[in-house]
Amino acid sequence: MQNQKLYAKFETELIVRPDDIDMNNHVHNSKYFDYVLAARYDQMTRCYKMPMDEFIARGFGWVVSGCTMRFKRPMALGDVAIVKTQIKEMKLNGVDVLFEIVRKETGKMCVDGLFEYTMINLKTQRAEKITQDIIDKYSI
Amino acid sequence: MQNQKLYAKFETELIVRPDDIDMNNHVHNSKYFDYVLAARYDQMTRCYKMPMDEFIARGFGWVVSGCTMRFKRPMALGDVAIVKTQIKEMKLNGVDVLFEIVRKETGKMCVDGLFEYTMINLKTQRAEKITQDIIDKYSI
Amino acid sequence: MQNQKLYAKFETELIVRPDDIDMNNHVHNSKYFDYVLAARYDQMTRCYKMPMDEFIARGFGWVVSGCTMRFKRPMALGDVAIVKTQIKEMKLNGVDVLFEIVRKETGKMCVDGLFEYTMINLKTQRAEKITQDIIDKYSI
Amino acid sequence: MQNQKLYAKFETELIVRPDDIDMNNHVHNSKYFDYVLAARYDQMTRCYKMPMDEFIARGFGWVVSGCTMRFKRPMALGDVAIVKTQIKEMKLNGVDVLFEIVRKETGKMCVDGLFEYTMINLKTQRAEKITQDIIDKYSI
Repeated sequence: MQNQKLYAKFETELIVRPDDIDMNNHVHNSKYFDYVLAARYDQMTRCYKMPMDEFIARGFGWVVSGCTMRFKRPMALGDVAIVKTQIKEMKLNGVDVLFEIVRKETGKMCVDGLFEYTMINLKTQRAEKITQDIIDKYSI
Repeated sequence: MQNQKLYAKFETELIVRPDDIDMNNHVHNSKYFDYVLAARYDQMTRCYKMPMDEFIARGFGWVVSGCTMRFKRPMALGDVAIVKTQIKEMKLNGVDVLFEIVRKETGKMCVDGLFEYTMINLKTQRAEKITQDIIDKYSI
Repeated sequence: MQNQKLYAKFETELIVRPDDIDMNNHVHNSKYFDYVLAARYDQMTRCYKMPMDEFIARGFGWVVSGCTMRFKRPMALGDVAIVKTQIKEMKLNGVDVLFEIVRKETGKMCVDGLFEYTMINLKTQRAEKITQDIIDKYSI
Repeated sequence: MQNQKLYAKFETELIVRPDDIDMNNHVHNSKYFDYVLAARYDQMTRCYKMPMDEFIARGFGWVVSGCTMRFKRPMALGDVAIVKTQIKEMKLNGVDVLFEIVRKETGKMCVDGLFEYTMINLKTQRAEKITQDIIDKYSI
């Protein structure tokens, strides 16, 4: 596996909001999905230097075509989530992204998993081949 | 007040979903706002016979410019909400809508208040004068 | 595989609400997670004849410990979702549940995947062995 | 009105998340409600030095019994919200809180209004008289 590229891991901090909490007094499971989306959106601008707006201006969008999530420990109101994401693999028209959500105070992992993003053409709403300049920006 | 028009009151049933429930085991306050939106959307099609799509096709949209809500009794998981809405007043470029949310099982009122809707021109995003044919459709 | 049990498949209808829609004018991905939760909650009462309240009264709760979701076709405002769930496997302290979300009007599959539920002891918040009477109720 | 007390105004910054955005590409109206809740939760700890946990430990909770909101300018993804809140009036068993949500980049006001909070006894779920020590903490 000597040729396997290791992509950079980036972090985004998110404060748990009261409307994220469910009847069990924990962050509602589906909100972790939203935390990953929020982290990627932030990291597109801040880390990959290609904000979503730039994709849209070029007629591209990103959709999630699949996800796997493991809920290991609950988070609660008052917690700060650190969402770490890392590209696992660049594909022809998408990118697989590993994520971990850890509780800032303890550093303990709460949720992890994988998001499969597909780049689409906004006009046709179909999968689009990722261009070389985008591959370059993401290959960090 | 002999000339005051009384507008029709319409009802929409909504099942409380688990993701509507908050840390107090009640429907989260801001979800009642969403229930009113959902009811109006349903009633536009079903009762006023002018679905949102028709507004959009004509270049119009609706935004909420203000609201007042009174939270009187909480609702819980397992409840069915009946959302009643009634136009209070047609205005030059908007409509004031009274609402009541009652719990189906008991018929008791849980939330009531007023939504102020403004019709906008989707291109300019500015308030638009409501045309006579729309006034007619809403004057039931 | 002659001994493999085939569990019953149940359906729940859910109306897409305006607050489920995201910036792409589709049902937001994480809402499908909530649709599955809502369907299971409904089916616990209606199909398995053991509502969540009964679990809680016995000191038990259910948490999602993992999920896999494939987003195949988007749903939109005006759509009705039919959420079909089916137990794939009963485990010592949990149950794996397959799901499919289809658009009622077309019957086309929009999202499918697997939820791994774990039964917990509400006091200890730890996984609990599923008792025989619960296994019996679920073995339909 | 020379005796009218002017209460302190506090600020909380919130980053708009992708799941806050609605079909109009703006922050969904009901999310502003959640922004105010999140700001008050933060300010209870940080500004009033009496976090929610302390209320709960004493058997008290806070519920919103009414709200008025004026939606003046939309916010969008990429924006940072500054939520300013200020007590308008202390009441026997509640507090009226004015709020303003401004867009950080421009300083322009987007939403303002009033939240009526009621302090409740968590056991009875009924309104509770606010004790003097709490009045003191809030009288800043």
